[in-house]
Amino acid sequence: MKFATLQTAQGKLVSLVNTESQQYWPLQDLVSGFTGDMVQLVHVFPEIKGRLTPTGEGKPLSQATVLAPIDQPRRNIFCVGKNYHEHAKEFSKSGFDSSAKEGEHAPEAPVVFTKPASTVIGPGKKVPSHPNVTKQLDYEAELAVVIGKAGRAIRKEEAYKHVIGYTIVNDFTARDLQKTHRQWFLGKSLDGFCPMGPYLVTADELDVENLEVKCWINDELRQDSNTSQLIFDIPTLIETLSAGIELQPGDVIATGTPAGVGIGFNPPKFVKAGDVMRIEITGLGTLVNEVE
Amino acid sequence: MKFATLQTAQGKLVSLVNTESQQYWPLQDLVSGFTGDMVQLVHVFPEIKGRLTPTGEGKPLSQATVLAPIDQPRRNIFCVGKNYHEHAKEFSKSGFDSSAKEGEHAPEAPVVFTKPASTVIGPGKKVPSHPNVTKQLDYEAELAVVIGKAGRAIRKEEAYKHVIGYTIVNDFTARDLQKTHRQWFLGKSLDGFCPMGPYLVTADELDVENLEVKCWINDELRQDSNTSQLIFDIPTLIETLSAGIELQPGDVIATGTPAGVGIGFNPPKFVKAGDVMRIEITGLGTLVNEVE
Repeated sequence: MKFATLQTAQGKLVSLVNTESQQYWPLQDLVSGFTGDMVQLVHVFPEIKGRLTPTGEGKPLSQATVLAPIDQPRRNIFCVGKNYHEHAKEFSKSGFDSSAKEGEHAPEAPVVFTKPASTVIGPGKKVPSHPNVTKQLDYEAELAVVIGKAGRAIRKEEAYKHVIGYTIVNDFTARDLQKTHRQWFLGKSLDGFCPMGPYLVTADELDVENLEVKCWINDELRQDSNTSQLIFDIPTLIETLSAGIELQPGDVIATGTPAGVGIGFNPPKFVKAGDVMRIEITGLGTLVNEVE
Repeated sequence: MKFATLQTAQGKLVSLVNTESQQYWPLQDLVSGFTGDMVQLVHVFPEIKGRLTPTGEGKPLSQATVLAPIDQPRRNIFCVGKNYHEHAKEFSKSGFDSSAKEGEHAPEAPVVFTKPASTVIGPGKKVPSHPNVTKQLDYEAELAVVIGKAGRAIRKEEAYKHVIGYTIVNDFTARDLQKTHRQWFLGKSLDGFCPMGPYLVTADELDVENLEVKCWINDELRQDSNTSQLIFDIPTLIETLSAGIELQPGDVIATGTPAGVGIGFNPPKFVKAGDVMRIEITGLGTLVNEVE
């Protein structure tokens, strides 16, 4: 199943989506009494999923605006850095990684950082370029995991049982701030720096360990990899995070970006106002955002 | 004025507190119609502050449990690392700072990281020791700023106008995780790792650039400094953060810890289950938490 958070003439509606027929069915029409947002849908999904059969004609998606599927995360977005070998190399070599050890490429343990919930914006929204704050804007195409079932100390073997589905995240970054402030947080956290969407796609629809991850800047293919190339796979990330942090339904974990980001080039290819970033991941659709 | 979030027989009540008489007045008794939490109080404070005069006998504080003043932050706690010279030195020398440059002591720009809102616990609550996850627990006594008025691109000269008051935070840390995972986030973010309180004290009661910051572990004085020793002062931190992130009423900024943390000693003095951490900052009261 694919779910979207839609802005419609009837207000903001979490909806079941058929991307082939380009139609949607508001959850409130399928499950009487449901008035929640996507996080609330995630909470009740196990109980209501049997009732999520589209009935009758859907409404045309073209008459709604697709927002970020989880447009109001309950807390920060968990993120993982340097989680594809080729990207770990390009980043270490770039000089922008203030935490890289001399000569180190792949990290020994997942590099975990975060973005505030307030960074999330939807597909098609312009990403603010903050011209007075940064001159080095960069894109990062990433598969994002959405937690379905709460859990602490989740073992790898049990990890996928805690995942409801997936979406796309652009872990947008101000490289100069990421470097200057040593910890990556600030450079990752400017307002609007987490484009997300278009859909939350349930896990059953995907072979998540074999998804192509691609990113184009103005139609030039920059990133082209596969989730099979993750250094730390999804079960490992969930085990690592949940060891000391109870994961909650609706939590989002961005799994890291493959090679081909702007600072992977020499000289770096930063993005600037007017550039269009297009990310595609197998089965998850396309996330397009222009730099404002 | 001092405000506390209290667990009482009548439920959770944001209250005005008199620490001398050890009495409290629930906000809802002073301002008719107020039923919110501390963040909601921060939002309406400018309008209602004239009405916040205690009327009649207060209730005895001894009959309530003091919770974290902002017990449900709306987003992550902003934190600053290495913001006292002597601590920056001890941390760089300790070998635990994965982002330290060779020979560097004081950072050139504020080192900004964060803890999820879900780490916050109140005074007197035990801090979980997560024995299966970490063996190197450490304390960090810190002055925390509470934002009163929203703002973006706040200039230093205007910064204090955006502050409603202050509280104490213990930026509790798993040093092994902080090091292993390179970015500090994970080692700072285990459940229960942000003791906060006891009160939110309004700015007018304090000379915030001259507050003693002290921390005892089992009655041994370990940290003893003054906010006059901050490398980056509060206006600078607010200017830096708000440059690209709109600060919101109720946001919390922990300003960094002075020298004397566990890893400042050789060998390191980590805390363990049963140890009692007591932090005192001039005018802000005492924050006591035992390691569980």
